[in-house]
Amino acid sequence: MTPPRHALRLAPQSGCALALERGQTLRVRSPTGEQVADVMAFARTAGTADPDEWLSSGRTIDYGNSIYVGSGTILYSNRSTPLLTVTADTAGRHDFLVAPCSEEMFERLYGMAGHPSCLANLATHLAPFGIRVDDIPTTLNLFMVVTPDPLSGVITIGVPSSRPGDHVDLRAETDLVVGVAACSAEVTNNGTLGPVEVEVHDAAPNPPGDEAQAR
Amino acid sequence: MTPPRHALRLAPQSGCALALERGQTLRVRSPTGEQVADVMAFARTAGTADPDEWLSSGRTIDYGNSIYVGSGTILYSNRSTPLLTVTADTAGRHDFLVAPCSEEMFERLYGMAGHPSCLANLATHLAPFGIRVDDIPTTLNLFMVVTPDPLSGVITIGVPSSRPGDHVDLRAETDLVVGVAACSAEVTNNGTLGPVEVEVHDAAPNPPGDEAQAR
Repeated sequence: MTPPRHALRLAPQSGCALALERGQTLRVRSPTGEQVADVMAFARTAGTADPDEWLSSGRTIDYGNSIYVGSGTILYSNRSTPLLTVTADTAGRHDFLVAPCSEEMFERLYGMAGHPSCLANLATHLAPFGIRVDDIPTTLNLFMVVTPDPLSGVITIGVPSSRPGDHVDLRAETDLVVGVAACSAEVTNNGTLGPVEVEVHDAAPNPPGDEAQAR
Repeated sequence: MTPPRHALRLAPQSGCALALERGQTLRVRSPTGEQVADVMAFARTAGTADPDEWLSSGRTIDYGNSIYVGSGTILYSNRSTPLLTVTADTAGRHDFLVAPCSEEMFERLYGMAGHPSCLANLATHLAPFGIRVDDIPTTLNLFMVVTPDPLSGVITIGVPSSRPGDHVDLRAETDLVVGVAACSAEVTNNGTLGPVEVEVHDAAPNPPGDEAQAR
């Protein structure tokens, strides 16, 4: 496996943002397992993100005909442009229904003031690319397990799908700015907050025949 | 029942937008039945909508702990502000998962060019309030029946829940601009495209004891 061009390790309850070139692959890994990583993407021209073209849960669910995201899923923008394709997924379950955790969410649901959050972490790191907090819609919540009851609609949040070392590969289908946050919500991460690893690969990190990373 | 302050009848495949005062109730009715109505809302100051505070499917699903919306559901903004409360619902099933139909959607899924769409109709009527098409996130799709399989995630789009005359009442919890579209997608509306009626009431249109409109 070729080494990644960039490799970051996000501390628990932190985030990052980076530019992706078309054809590059973003790998998001949970080294410790049972950890959710929120992802948001915007189209990009040169060094600036376009706040008007954003990763859309509603388009992706409609075109993919599924509320779940997995290997082969194309992630669409609000303008129906393919932004990313899931080219590998060793965990198998992810959420695209609920908004990123936010300071307001912790206050409203748990009475916790000033709690770190995915929304704040994404906003902080996307700001230098021209994205404001109100530009951030529903995130793709990698490794988060949200299961709806089809009769009542009630959702159940389960233990994250990631085992130690599980990863998802997202290939950029156009130039992008991508934000990633190591989810800050204790309740969503089975009580323990772990780091998240983020890598940028110029080519597919696991070409056919490369079994070293296969599970 | 007190007559509404305003009453509109949207022709099939059309839309409208209007200002709502806090405390007013928006009634959306399907006079012919089996017709979906897409709704979007933005916070408002004087005559101008705030594109930065928008009705959020992800917040609403998270706080309501359900993918479905019905009587009693509070509809939240991206900033966790209650925008609207569902105070009456004679149909019982609505969708908040899939994006509004768009010209791109008809092209991509059905090879139909230049098809009318909810997104275009909402954008046209929200434009005078300062909203651009890219500001419109996943809409609340009244009377649309989208059922996910909890194991596979696959969604099934059923016949709309509205029988002739069914309605939903939405009470404004703050000053708003609201857009409504009579859904343009043949496949979503069981093959027949109907009108949608929109009313603005200064008080709750069905106070306790008023049984005339009850089903």
